[in-house]
Amino acid sequence: MPQDTPTAQAERLDKDVALMKAAGLSVVRMGESTWSLWEPEDGHFDYAWMDRIVDAMGKAGIKVILGTPTYSLPAWMARQHSEILADRIPPGLFGGKATRSTYGIRQNMDTDSPAYRFYAERLIRHIVAHYKDNPTVIGWQLDNETGSYDAANSDVFIGFQHHLEKKFGTPEALSKAWFLNYWGENLHTWEDLPKRDGTISTGYKLEWSRWSQMRVTDFLHWQAVLVRECAGASQFVTTDYGSMMRRDVNEEAVAQALDIVANNIYHGTQDHYDGSYQALQCDFSRSLKHANFLITETNAQTIGWTSASQFPPYDGQLREDVYTYLANGANMVEYWHWASIAGNQETYWKGILSHDLEPNRAYAEVSRTAHELQKIGPSLVGLKVKNQVAILYSRDSANAISFMPYGGGVPSRSWSGEPDGYLSVVQQMHKALYDLNIGADFVFPEATDFSAYKLLIVPALYISDDALLQRISDYVKNGGHVVMTFKSGFANENSAVRWVRAPGPLREAAGISYQEFSNLEHPLALKGDPFQAGAENVVSYWAEFLIPEHAKSLAFYDHFFFGKWPAITENFYGSGTLLYEGTYLSDELQTAILRRSLEAAGLTGSDQQLPAAVHVQHGVNRLGKRLHYYFNYSAGEVKVNYAYAAGANLLDGKPVAKAAVLTLAPWDLAIIEE
Amino acid sequence: MPQDTPTAQAERLDKDVALMKAAGLSVVRMGESTWSLWEPEDGHFDYAWMDRIVDAMGKAGIKVILGTPTYSLPAWMARQHSEILADRIPPGLFGGKATRSTYGIRQNMDTDSPAYRFYAERLIRHIVAHYKDNPTVIGWQLDNETGSYDAANSDVFIGFQHHLEKKFGTPEALSKAWFLNYWGENLHTWEDLPKRDGTISTGYKLEWSRWSQMRVTDFLHWQAVLVRECAGASQFVTTDYGSMMRRDVNEEAVAQALDIVANNIYHGTQDHYDGSYQALQCDFSRSLKHANFLITETNAQTIGWTSASQFPPYDGQLREDVYTYLANGANMVEYWHWASIAGNQETYWKGILSHDLEPNRAYAEVSRTAHELQKIGPSLVGLKVKNQVAILYSRDSANAISFMPYGGGVPSRSWSGEPDGYLSVVQQMHKALYDLNIGADFVFPEATDFSAYKLLIVPALYISDDALLQRISDYVKNGGHVVMTFKSGFANENSAVRWVRAPGPLREAAGISYQEFSNLEHPLALKGDPFQAGAENVVSYWAEFLIPEHAKSLAFYDHFFFGKWPAITENFYGSGTLLYEGTYLSDELQTAILRRSLEAAGLTGSDQQLPAAVHVQHGVNRLGKRLHYYFNYSAGEVKVNYAYAAGANLLDGKPVAKAAVLTLAPWDLAIIEE
Amino acid sequence: MPQDTPTAQAERLDKDVALMKAAGLSVVRMGESTWSLWEPEDGHFDYAWMDRIVDAMGKAGIKVILGTPTYSLPAWMARQHSEILADRIPPGLFGGKATRSTYGIRQNMDTDSPAYRFYAERLIRHIVAHYKDNPTVIGWQLDNETGSYDAANSDVFIGFQHHLEKKFGTPEALSKAWFLNYWGENLHTWEDLPKRDGTISTGYKLEWSRWSQMRVTDFLHWQAVLVRECAGASQFVTTDYGSMMRRDVNEEAVAQALDIVANNIYHGTQDHYDGSYQALQCDFSRSLKHANFLITETNAQTIGWTSASQFPPYDGQLREDVYTYLANGANMVEYWHWASIAGNQETYWKGILSHDLEPNRAYAEVSRTAHELQKIGPSLVGLKVKNQVAILYSRDSANAISFMPYGGGVPSRSWSGEPDGYLSVVQQMHKALYDLNIGADFVFPEATDFSAYKLLIVPALYISDDALLQRISDYVKNGGHVVMTFKSGFANENSAVRWVRAPGPLREAAGISYQEFSNLEHPLALKGDPFQAGAENVVSYWAEFLIPEHAKSLAFYDHFFFGKWPAITENFYGSGTLLYEGTYLSDELQTAILRRSLEAAGLTGSDQQLPAAVHVQHGVNRLGKRLHYYFNYSAGEVKVNYAYAAGANLLDGKPVAKAAVLTLAPWDLAIIEE
Repeated sequence: MPQDTPTAQAERLDKDVALMKAAGLSVVRMGESTWSLWEPEDGHFDYAWMDRIVDAMGKAGIKVILGTPTYSLPAWMARQHSEILADRIPPGLFGGKATRSTYGIRQNMDTDSPAYRFYAERLIRHIVAHYKDNPTVIGWQLDNETGSYDAANSDVFIGFQHHLEKKFGTPEALSKAWFLNYWGENLHTWEDLPKRDGTISTGYKLEWSRWSQMRVTDFLHWQAVLVRECAGASQFVTTDYGSMMRRDVNEEAVAQALDIVANNIYHGTQDHYDGSYQALQCDFSRSLKHANFLITETNAQTIGWTSASQFPPYDGQLREDVYTYLANGANMVEYWHWASIAGNQETYWKGILSHDLEPNRAYAEVSRTAHELQKIGPSLVGLKVKNQVAILYSRDSANAISFMPYGGGVPSRSWSGEPDGYLSVVQQMHKALYDLNIGADFVFPEATDFSAYKLLIVPALYISDDALLQRISDYVKNGGHVVMTFKSGFANENSAVRWVRAPGPLREAAGISYQEFSNLEHPLALKGDPFQAGAENVVSYWAEFLIPEHAKSLAFYDHFFFGKWPAITENFYGSGTLLYEGTYLSDELQTAILRRSLEAAGLTGSDQQLPAAVHVQHGVNRLGKRLHYYFNYSAGEVKVNYAYAAGANLLDGKPVAKAAVLTLAPWDLAIIEE
Repeated sequence: MPQDTPTAQAERLDKDVALMKAAGLSVVRMGESTWSLWEPEDGHFDYAWMDRIVDAMGKAGIKVILGTPTYSLPAWMARQHSEILADRIPPGLFGGKATRSTYGIRQNMDTDSPAYRFYAERLIRHIVAHYKDNPTVIGWQLDNETGSYDAANSDVFIGFQHHLEKKFGTPEALSKAWFLNYWGENLHTWEDLPKRDGTISTGYKLEWSRWSQMRVTDFLHWQAVLVRECAGASQFVTTDYGSMMRRDVNEEAVAQALDIVANNIYHGTQDHYDGSYQALQCDFSRSLKHANFLITETNAQTIGWTSASQFPPYDGQLREDVYTYLANGANMVEYWHWASIAGNQETYWKGILSHDLEPNRAYAEVSRTAHELQKIGPSLVGLKVKNQVAILYSRDSANAISFMPYGGGVPSRSWSGEPDGYLSVVQQMHKALYDLNIGADFVFPEATDFSAYKLLIVPALYISDDALLQRISDYVKNGGHVVMTFKSGFANENSAVRWVRAPGPLREAAGISYQEFSNLEHPLALKGDPFQAGAENVVSYWAEFLIPEHAKSLAFYDHFFFGKWPAITENFYGSGTLLYEGTYLSDELQTAILRRSLEAAGLTGSDQQLPAAVHVQHGVNRLGKRLHYYFNYSAGEVKVNYAYAAGANLLDGKPVAKAAVLTLAPWDLAIIEE
Repeated sequence: MPQDTPTAQAERLDKDVALMKAAGLSVVRMGESTWSLWEPEDGHFDYAWMDRIVDAMGKAGIKVILGTPTYSLPAWMARQHSEILADRIPPGLFGGKATRSTYGIRQNMDTDSPAYRFYAERLIRHIVAHYKDNPTVIGWQLDNETGSYDAANSDVFIGFQHHLEKKFGTPEALSKAWFLNYWGENLHTWEDLPKRDGTISTGYKLEWSRWSQMRVTDFLHWQAVLVRECAGASQFVTTDYGSMMRRDVNEEAVAQALDIVANNIYHGTQDHYDGSYQALQCDFSRSLKHANFLITETNAQTIGWTSASQFPPYDGQLREDVYTYLANGANMVEYWHWASIAGNQETYWKGILSHDLEPNRAYAEVSRTAHELQKIGPSLVGLKVKNQVAILYSRDSANAISFMPYGGGVPSRSWSGEPDGYLSVVQQMHKALYDLNIGADFVFPEATDFSAYKLLIVPALYISDDALLQRISDYVKNGGHVVMTFKSGFANENSAVRWVRAPGPLREAAGISYQEFSNLEHPLALKGDPFQAGAENVVSYWAEFLIPEHAKSLAFYDHFFFGKWPAITENFYGSGTLLYEGTYLSDELQTAILRRSLEAAGLTGSDQQLPAAVHVQHGVNRLGKRLHYYFNYSAGEVKVNYAYAAGANLLDGKPVAKAAVLTLAPWDLAIIEE
């Protein structure tokens, strides 16, 4: 919401609400950045400013989700209690001295600080109680994009020490688990535990990353309990994740406190708009509670913290985006945000309205889409998506690999470009499936049973306890198909490399072992181009010297030395298969490998024959009818052979015969209901 | 001056003075880095060392400008009063904790510190009084290349708070002007004002940049008053700017304290020597007081703070440099410095003499030039330069754009290579004019009347109050020609984006409006190459989606999406025109656009027909005669058609007929007096 | 040694010792990182854990070198005495505030700290006394890869001040020597001496670098005295240098405290394996005491502090490495380390055994080599290497050039890639000699006589006192041949540029002088390709404008301006020659120049006719017999003409006739004993 305008607030509020209503918007999310408005001075509370807005929304029939405003401190609090500001560990392999955050940026606090908890609780109780019976307020959002903020304040550190005491029992046991004999740093008293700042212990770093996650979980569970204690019975509780697969948030654990998951997804636009990143984030969101979810924020006009990354969507992309989310299991799509802000960090993170607050190209497209949804929304919402392929996501592996990266040039795949050796593989896998029009779920290390899936993909499972490796082996033995990459099974739950032949407990199921590995200084070809990848017949960064024991070699390096060992093997084990990639494949090779494994698992069909620009999603709606979304993610018109039972295109109401040819305009789609 | 040599000082002093005299030098500038010599211990003063030098100069007929030595602290002061050392804000979008400067580097103090002011005043009073009646000392230089040093010490911060109290009245008014509601950071007491360190408020950052400028202005005005109080009546007061267009110095405001402006200009040499940067700096210097100025420092042999950027001038460049300055309005040219220093940071910032202190190639060329000037100087000095084109320079826009850059790859154009999205446009404009042999003045936002100019160039006027925009509109209405670029009129004086259709109050005069803009991920061509720029027909970085309302579209993007909007428009408004560039043009396109606008304004002629390597400057000397400088900035001989009235080449005394062909040797010139 | 395993320690120890014995290993080095095991709590000592290991080794006939474990602090000490942690100067031209090290990384202490010295002495006394009579323990290693750790704690700073007082006498003398008048920073009391943190004084920086070296020397001499006081008479004392040519260690001075020098050499492998870096490091090690030395660490499987630089050797390279060291004067080769560590910073710095602790490819190759050496070792050890070429190494020049680098792009030549303008030239010189199969010694500035060598190479001798320059001149005059590069003779021992024509006292011998120099913005060709270097006929970065006075010009720049001065000159002076390179030559040109000078000195022969992949080393063994090592450093088989007297290949025992053709398999060698 624009909170201050050159003209009188009241006048603008009416205009905004009228514009929203005219556009067909039905819900707004407010309040998350407003602590200093609710509580301008310590202990003085004000609701009138928000009452006025909520009332106006209510009158217009627009529902409201309110956020607890705890992620950004008011200035008076930072001045009175500077100990609330986070002492942050600088990034980098060797850390460095934690330094006190400066005031200004949001998300700069130690959420464990007693002073902060006191203030947060008092405010939350006031606000939630105030709106508990307001029918316009349908739900509560806890905080905003919560993270650990790398806080390492004394209370965080001492909490960590107590956590270690409970987990390891004695300093000697800890020293042994973390191999602190290394460089003579083992402990005999808990008081000698060094700070996180400069530690080089891989065990310490991994456990600290878990502690950071536990702190986020604890904080949000605490807020959830608090809000539920005060809220109305019909008001739901959610929190908006700041995108999924953040290394300092245990997304599954947080989700247990929520009625419904919400995600803020920002993605590439213009020539980078292809739906794949949205699908990745949606698949992850849906997998947390095995349920549909909300999109609380996504690109409106442009994003970026400066004026240097402004890429407003091409015509059609804003509308297609909404359907992309619905097709992937979202039950709501909201933007950040309604109107552009005149100043400060997000001046150029533009809302639906530009700074002039007039209707515009984005408004028109949002409005068109909202009006479509007023008609066909009931047929789309609550889509049930069922997948037969799962990707095993290991947050511990992501963290541990970041402490010991296996290659500087490993491509980042997210639109934000942050390098991450683990996510790079996860996202390559998901993108290959997406390009093959195969839906995927995510599963987590705690999963006790993978049998719901025909194909399990295991990217770089660097960290795992023996039990998980055993479950994967059992899954294969019992008929499951696994595609697994390098680094899997290497280290145990304390980031200690196993003292047995790699890949440890997976050796039997994988049918290979190895003692050696090498970085690849230059990309290598696979001998004979076994997967017809042409110029893309290259592997990079990493090569394990795989020794087949029961496995079959599928491909060898084209090199006088590395060529002695296979690059990819496949093992028949029990009634399943385990395909092992000992190297980092090109995207083309990865897609070829997955296509091969999908075929073996009987998961391919007509969806794998579509043009490259077209993506298809399937699901069953609340009425029990099957929906088929066909998206054209390109600037050109495309024709598609429709391969399912006769139905109708919900967007234009026209019937679609079996084997009909669909014509999709640029950045347009068809939604066929059988 | 070499201050210490292996041989006896006296002997060397005589030799230096003799060499200077033989070279024809007439003035030296001394003393600016010498606090510890004047005051070796707290309160103990020594003048003898300088008296000896000033006397020797006086005897040789060489005049002296003395600098107040306040820009570099003596070691004893830093030890006794470490609070004088500046607490510096680190650079970067998000700042960070201010840290106390270390001793060693110069320009590391908080110039507001009472201790510093006490010491500076005591010393200045002593020195100036000592030389007030010395006829050799003709003027005083205040400090040296003064800046804000990013100081954010407590006294600076509290001063800023008081400044805000006066400017905004209440914390609520401030919060409203700066949109501090954003992230819930608004203020209700002045005491809660956060430090500059980590602020993300664009309003705060802009006002702090002004405060930094005000501190520099205040400090130099204070020194000027002090020096004038003590100095002799005939001694002038100047300060040597550390080049113009620094973002933390309000050059116009500082100039009001001075009798004459002085500038230190360092520029590219060897293959990068073309006179353009000198012209830029001179045009700016001249515009501050609408008067001629001094060059207090420029390249002697080589520059650089290490041994890695040593590029001594090719033969002829040192001599041509002197005339380049004179042709642009300088009344004096001095070098930094006479002799090379044997140690420390500027060991490789070489003077006219190398470390051997013997005559050399540079000395010979300086000497040749000085002897020429002994003859023809009186015909050259005091040149009046009158221009019909002005560039509007907005320091606020430079700062505000640096907080919100519009493109990472925007080319830096200064020889120093510092990236700056605003200066990049300013310098492109000036360079295009320079290449077209069109002289330009700079005007500033405070200017109340632009009518002295036929063409006003307005680069990226991101920050401006409504009144300035109105003055520009009025200028157009009354017959002025304006060339204006993207981002102009966007934000108000508090860096808040206007809540009306862009470009705000300029909309009527520009005849366009826009609601959207985009970065350009890749350069785009203009459709149909409308300005015959060939390979240079490209625009980059930024595109506003201009909607012509009254304006004519001059060029469109060659792109299926961006092509819907024009890239360049022109509007006839009143009796003038406003040409608006919604994108960043290639240099070739910018030159073509300006050539077109200059033609429309009737400002082109034979000067626009010269070979590329040749640059011409015109002016009227003190005798009222017109001078025409023709420079050859290349390694090859060139021939030029002389297009003015018959006269004589002052350099060789030979007559030059109307329509004569001048032959210019490499890095040589002709100066024709009509 | 693996210090903790999932299975019982005892069991693993027996297995390790058995594997070592089976492999033919005869000595292990232990204990250097184990302070917390020796002294788990302040003042409580434990030896049993090591006794058990030493006993096991003794029983297996494996000798032990024990390290004093002082280079890594136990956690309890860092907590109790945080003042031991080093206050480190950040790198960079302008330094910055020294910051206290964090605990975690090793080598983070102020080795001057009294608390540290107290603890270190107590522990050393305990350990050494405990093993003084143990016949298995043959020697002591002091600390590990000791450096200055950039410590600038108060005691270090005050020590430096006292050092300056003694060296310079008065603050005025210091100020004069360091040209502190510059920026008015001269001193009149010692108390005003500024910290090292932000100094820009080149004299200060150089002297501080010497002080850092002196501290390392003092610390290791102190340990040597201490260890000798406690150790058994037959136990030797060494320290393992962390590679040679570190700028903060005076390697010659340290060596005076040692019975034998030891070096840890890590080098390129796979396609980067050519023996040249090993030869460089060995030549330097041998030159310290003019005696053979130990290799205490070298690459086993892979190295690197992350998983991103793993390059296990190709087959044959591990074995060839051992002989490479022996051929260069090593008397022992040890690896770091026996077995790979399961966690922490060196998880991927893999030992001979992988994490599975089973025999593997590396173990097999090490074992093969050790068994060979059991047979032929007595003929190889103690090889006397005598060279006729020396390279003058100036640590001061390395430091001073790092403060004033002459070119950002100057290629780094070490495998670690650290940029260093001085080392780049030194290593280029050594590599050229290596490629020419010419052995070289290093000599140091203190050397009083170079007459043992026919050719003296002087790279960039930026810092030197007059006396050294005089000795070089005398060497030439008396018939020596010198190849010298740019920057030599430029500054005196206080890093002050000489106030005479460069190259100062070398002018007469060099037969040239210069007053000017330039960086080269682009590489230039030498006119007419005088050394037939083809595409490699290029010089870069730096050009002195040499004025031949007596010298002959050997090559000119192909450039209209720079071409006025020669790039390379040669002077006949007395009965010797001095060849001067005023620019940075390509490797090819450097090799051509050195070949030319070697020919003139009569140092070339059949060794210069060998194929490029083959390297030859000569020496005389303890039996007085000449050995000729022929190495094939390539993946292909090569044939070599043997050019010495008939003998036998020690590796296969077969006779080798005069003029025989040797066939060398990939990464294999022949050792011919005459």
